[in-house]
Amino acid sequence: MPAPLNTMADAIRVLSMDAVEQANSGHPGMPMGMADVAAVLWTKFLKYDAARPDWADRDRFVLSAGHGSMLLYSLLHLSGVKAVTLDSLRNFRQLGSNTPGHPEYGHTPGVETTTGPLGQGLATAVGMAMAERHLAARFGGDLVDHRTWVLAGDGCLMEGVSHEAISLAGRLKLAKLTVLWDDNDITIDGHVGLSDATDQLARFKAAGWAVKRIDGHDFGQIRRALAWATRQDRPSLIACKTIIGKGSPTFAGTHDVHGKALGKDEVVKTRENLGWPHEPFVVPDEIARAWRSAGRRGAKVRKAWEARLAASTLRGEFERAMAGELPKTAFAALDQFIADAEAKAPAAATRQHSGAVLEKIFGEIPELVGGSADLTGSNNTFVKNTPILDAPDYAGRYVNYGVREFGMAAAMNGLALHGGVIPYGGTFLVFTDYSRPAIRLAALMGIRVIHVGTHDSIGLGEDGPTHQPVEHLASLRAMPNVNVFRPADAVETAECWKLALDAKATPSVLALSRQKTAAVRTQPIGENLSARGAYQLAAATKPALVTIFASGTEVPVALAARDLLEAEGIGARVVSVPCFELFEAQPRDYQETLIGETDVRVAVEAGVRMGWDRFIGSDGVFVGMEGFGASAPDKALYKHFGITAEAVAAAAKAKL
Amino acid sequence: MPAPLNTMADAIRVLSMDAVEQANSGHPGMPMGMADVAAVLWTKFLKYDAARPDWADRDRFVLSAGHGSMLLYSLLHLSGVKAVTLDSLRNFRQLGSNTPGHPEYGHTPGVETTTGPLGQGLATAVGMAMAERHLAARFGGDLVDHRTWVLAGDGCLMEGVSHEAISLAGRLKLAKLTVLWDDNDITIDGHVGLSDATDQLARFKAAGWAVKRIDGHDFGQIRRALAWATRQDRPSLIACKTIIGKGSPTFAGTHDVHGKALGKDEVVKTRENLGWPHEPFVVPDEIARAWRSAGRRGAKVRKAWEARLAASTLRGEFERAMAGELPKTAFAALDQFIADAEAKAPAAATRQHSGAVLEKIFGEIPELVGGSADLTGSNNTFVKNTPILDAPDYAGRYVNYGVREFGMAAAMNGLALHGGVIPYGGTFLVFTDYSRPAIRLAALMGIRVIHVGTHDSIGLGEDGPTHQPVEHLASLRAMPNVNVFRPADAVETAECWKLALDAKATPSVLALSRQKTAAVRTQPIGENLSARGAYQLAAATKPALVTIFASGTEVPVALAARDLLEAEGIGARVVSVPCFELFEAQPRDYQETLIGETDVRVAVEAGVRMGWDRFIGSDGVFVGMEGFGASAPDKALYKHFGITAEAVAAAAKAKL
Repeated sequence: MPAPLNTMADAIRVLSMDAVEQANSGHPGMPMGMADVAAVLWTKFLKYDAARPDWADRDRFVLSAGHGSMLLYSLLHLSGVKAVTLDSLRNFRQLGSNTPGHPEYGHTPGVETTTGPLGQGLATAVGMAMAERHLAARFGGDLVDHRTWVLAGDGCLMEGVSHEAISLAGRLKLAKLTVLWDDNDITIDGHVGLSDATDQLARFKAAGWAVKRIDGHDFGQIRRALAWATRQDRPSLIACKTIIGKGSPTFAGTHDVHGKALGKDEVVKTRENLGWPHEPFVVPDEIARAWRSAGRRGAKVRKAWEARLAASTLRGEFERAMAGELPKTAFAALDQFIADAEAKAPAAATRQHSGAVLEKIFGEIPELVGGSADLTGSNNTFVKNTPILDAPDYAGRYVNYGVREFGMAAAMNGLALHGGVIPYGGTFLVFTDYSRPAIRLAALMGIRVIHVGTHDSIGLGEDGPTHQPVEHLASLRAMPNVNVFRPADAVETAECWKLALDAKATPSVLALSRQKTAAVRTQPIGENLSARGAYQLAAATKPALVTIFASGTEVPVALAARDLLEAEGIGARVVSVPCFELFEAQPRDYQETLIGETDVRVAVEAGVRMGWDRFIGSDGVFVGMEGFGASAPDKALYKHFGITAEAVAAAAKAKL
Repeated sequence: MPAPLNTMADAIRVLSMDAVEQANSGHPGMPMGMADVAAVLWTKFLKYDAARPDWADRDRFVLSAGHGSMLLYSLLHLSGVKAVTLDSLRNFRQLGSNTPGHPEYGHTPGVETTTGPLGQGLATAVGMAMAERHLAARFGGDLVDHRTWVLAGDGCLMEGVSHEAISLAGRLKLAKLTVLWDDNDITIDGHVGLSDATDQLARFKAAGWAVKRIDGHDFGQIRRALAWATRQDRPSLIACKTIIGKGSPTFAGTHDVHGKALGKDEVVKTRENLGWPHEPFVVPDEIARAWRSAGRRGAKVRKAWEARLAASTLRGEFERAMAGELPKTAFAALDQFIADAEAKAPAAATRQHSGAVLEKIFGEIPELVGGSADLTGSNNTFVKNTPILDAPDYAGRYVNYGVREFGMAAAMNGLALHGGVIPYGGTFLVFTDYSRPAIRLAALMGIRVIHVGTHDSIGLGEDGPTHQPVEHLASLRAMPNVNVFRPADAVETAECWKLALDAKATPSVLALSRQKTAAVRTQPIGENLSARGAYQLAAATKPALVTIFASGTEVPVALAARDLLEAEGIGARVVSVPCFELFEAQPRDYQETLIGETDVRVAVEAGVRMGWDRFIGSDGVFVGMEGFGASAPDKALYKHFGITAEAVAAAAKAKL
C-alpha cells in the first residue's frame, strides 16, 4: 500500500522545519501550511518528470511566496530531482548550496523563476502562461500544452503588481493559469486583518477569474478544486484556507511561525504531534518511494511528447526557438539598413530609428513578441500589420499590456523564462521606475528581455519633470547585469538592437529620444562599434587637448562643440558612449587608450553626472543636469539647462 | 440669472482646448470629458475659497489623471485663484509659467500634489484623507473637517498602486475620500477593452468601497451622486461615464483627442458645435462672474473656521504643526541619547539604534506618524504602546500599511502634503525599488517624508540576493533632492534622524543595517558631524599615505584596515561618509580638505562603486560589490565578497 497523502505531506513539513532549524534561518510557516495542497498538486496534477525538470512541455510551478522556499526544495528533493539532495537541504541558506534563502532561477533545477520580492512570481507566471498559449498557437497543441500553477500568499495579493497581473491575465483569458492562494490569515506583522480587508474572491472575479474557496487541509476538496481549475475557460483562483505552520502545537496559526526557526523544543513537540518519530532529514522508505513514484509519473507523457517532437516537421524550429538561438538570417535585412543609414544619414528621433529597426527584424525573428504599456504610438514598438496576441487566437505577436509597466516587465520575464519567446516592451524611460523591480529580477536571473524606454531626457519637452528622466540612466547603469543602451542615431540604434538580441543572459534597456537628432555615423565601417560600449567617433585634427564624451542625443552636441573648439585651434576628439557596461567588458588597454589623457575631459549627457567620472575623472567637466527638468519645448529646455555645444566648448576652454 | 452649469462647463472645455492649441501640446480629451463633473463638484460641493487656496481646512482636490492639467488650471483660473491668470493659460507648458504640462505642487496655488505618473494621485490622496481623519482626532472636528476628492482615469485604475491605495483606504474606512473615475472607455492606444476588462465597480466594492455609476454628462445625476458620496461610511467611487473630448464634433469619443491639440479647423468646429462664439481665451462676463461667485462660496465658511481657530486653545499647536515646525523640545531627549551613546559606545544593528532614537523623539514630536509595510519588527519602526491609526479612532500614530511599499510611500507623500503630519515608514532597503516612483515625486515636490530602509546590504545574510541591496544606495543617490543617510552607529543614526527631521523640503532615506556593528563615535563632540555629509573620523598618526572612505557598517571595517596599515607604519586616515548629498552642500574648501591628497584613496561600501569616484577619483581603489549578493550568513558573505579590513589594507598597500 502506498504511503497516504497526509504522511507524504508531513514529509514536506518535517524537512522544511528541519532545514530551517539547521540554518537557524528561514520560513517554516508557509511550507507547513501549504504541504497538503502541494502534495496533491505534485502527486496528482502537475505534469512533470523529475528526471527531466527542464522538459519543455512540463507544467510550470511558480512559488510566488518565495520565502517558503523549503516547500519547493522539499518537493524537488522528494520527487527525485537529482541535484536536490539531502545535503542540499542540510545546507539550506549556506554559501554555494543550491538551496538559497529564496528560490533562484539557474541555481536549482526545477526552480522556474526567482521569487521573493512579493507579487512578482504571480506576475511572471502570467507571462509564462502567455508564452504557452502563444507557442501552442505557433507549434500546435501536440508540442505545447501545459499549465502554469502559482502558489501565492497574502503578501503577493496585497502588492500592486498582483492587480496588474490578474487584470492582464483575466483580459487575456489565460485558462491554463491557476493561482493557489495560501489563505492563512497571517502576515509578518500579525493577522492579515490588521492591514487588509479585501474580498479577494470578489476581486479576482472582477478581473475575470473563476474563483473557488476550499479547506486547504481537506485532500478531497483540494483534489476536486484542482480538477475544477483544469476545466475553466478563464484563469482560476483557489483560495486555500490553511493554518500556517500546521503541525507545530505551539505556533500553528500564528505569525510567530512565519519567518523563523521553531526552536529545538518545538521541533521535538512538532515531531510528536505529527507522529513522526524519525531523525532530522530522515524520510522513511515507504514515504520516499511514494514520492519518487509520483516524481516519475510524467515520464511516460514526456517520452510520448519526445516521440511526437521527433516526428514533427517543426522540430528544428521548435528546438531552435526554445534554445533561444536566433535564426541565421536574423540580421540580414538589418545589415542592409545599417549600410543605407550610413549612406543616407537620416535625421530622426532614435525611437523612430528603433521602429525602423523592428520593421527589419520582426519578420526575421519569429520569437520576437512586442508590446507597450499603452504607449504604442509613442514607443514605436508596433510593426504594422502585426496581429495582436489575444484570446482566442494567441498566435499574434504584439501585446496590449495596458497601463501596467511593472506587470508588463514581469510578464516579459515570464515570456523569456518559459522559452521560445524573446520579449520586448515599451514605455517612457522615466517609468522604468515603475518596472524596476522586475528589471532587477531579470538581471539577477540573467535572462534576455528588452525594454524600450523612449522619451529619454528633458528632450521630451512639455510633459515636464514628472516625465523627464534625469537620474534614470545612472540608476539603471548602477544595476548589475543590465545593458543600458543610449544610441545616437540610426546606425547605433541598429547596432544596439543587435547587441540586445545577442545578449542571451542579460536584459537590456534601450533609451531612445522623442526628439529628432542628427546622424553621427555616416561612414561605412563594417564593424558594430557600439559593441565596444564606447568608441572614438571623431578624431582631433590637431594635437588633442580636449576629449568630449557623450551619449545619444548629446553626441551631435559634442560634435558641434568639437567644431567650435577646432575652429579656435583647439584639438578636440569625440567619443560616443552608447553602453557603459560593454565598455567595462573591453580589454583594459582599449579602455585606457580610448579615454586617453587629453588636458581636458568633458562629458555631456542630459542626465545626472553619476557614473561619468569613469570617463572624465572626478576633476573632469560634466555638462548635464543637476536637478529635475521643467515643462517647456525641448529646445528651450536644452538652452535653459545649458546643454549646448556652446556651453560644452566654453566649459572645455575654461578648464584649459 | 446666473450662467447655467453647461455653459460654465463649456468654459472649461474651451479654455482647455485653446491652451492646448496654443501650446500645440497637451491633453484636451480629459478636461473636455470631465468638465461637467468638475463644474458640479467645484461649484456645489468642493469646500474651498479661491482667495485662500492654502486654507488648512479646505477640501483637497487631486487630479490623479495629471495629463488633464488644463482641467485644473481652468478651474483655478475661473474660480478666481489670483496667480492663475489668463496669461498663465496662454503660457501653458512654457518655460517659467505656473501652468506646466502636468500639475506641479509648489508651482501653482491650488495644486495639492504633483501628478502625471499614473495611479499616484489616487494613492497620495489616500494619505491626505488619512491625515484629515488623524488631525480631526487630534484637534477636533471644529478645526479639521474636510473631504478629499480624486479625479482618476482608466490609467490610474490599471496601475498596480491603485490596488494598494484602494485596499488601504477601504481597510481604514476613509469615508471622506471620493474617487471620480473618468470612465470614458479610452486609453492612449485605443478602446480600454484592448487591454482591460476589469469590472471596476465590483473591484472597488471588494476593497470595501461604496460604488455608484452615473452618466457624467447629466448634471442631476452628478449632483445626486456627489451628495450620496458625502453620506457614505466608507470611501466612495463614482464611475462617471463620459465622452472623452466632448464638444469636438470629429474626435469626441476617440483616442485621437487624448493627447494632442485638436488642430485649427477642429477648434473652429468645436466652437460652433458648443455654440461658443467667443475668441480664444475669452470667457464672457456672465460666465466668468458665475465662476468667481462659486469661487467665493467658501469664504464665509473659511472665515467662521478662522474665528474658531482664533478662539481655540489648540491654536498655537495647530498652527505649529501645520507649518511643519518641530516643537522646541523635539531633540532634548535625543541629545542626551547621543551623549550617552558617545560614552557607552553601544554595539548593535543601526536599525536598532534607529528604534532607540524613535523612542526618544516620538513622544516629543506629536506630528510623527510611523508605519511599516508589514515589517514592523524588522524595521524597528514601532514605538511601544503606540496606538494604531485605524477606524474608528484615527488618533493612533502607527499605520499598518500592509505589504504595500509603493502605496505606503505615496500615502506618506499625502500625509506630508496635507500638513500637520511628519510621516516615516519602513521596509527593507531593497524594496525602495517598489516605492521608488513615490520617492521621486517626494523629491520633485520637495516634501519631508522619511523612508526607513533596513537590511541595507549583503549583511542581511541568508535571505539572499533578492533581498540584498547592492545598487540601491547608488540609485537613490542619483536621484535629485533625496538625502540618503547611511549611519554607522548610534551617534550617527541619531544625527541622521535629526537631519531628516530638519529637512523640510527634502525626503530622506535612512539605510540601516540588519546586523550588529561596532560604535565608531565614542568621543563627545558637541556637533552634528553627519550634517557635513562626510567628516574625518580618525586621523593618521603618522604622515598620511592612505585615506579610507566608508559608510555605515563598513566604517568599522575601514577603522580596522587603518589599524592594520598603521601597524605596518603606513599612515592612514578614515573618513566617514553618512550622506553624499550633504557633503555636496559643503563649502568647496571643506570638501577639498576632507578628501585630501593622500597617495592612495580607498572607499569601502557593501554596494556598487558608482558615485564613489567623487571621493577616490577614477583611479581610486574601491572595495565593495561588483554584482549581486548571495544567500549565506552575513559573515560568510563579507568574507566571500572580500569586504574585510584585510582586503582593504591589502588593496591600499598594493596601490602604494
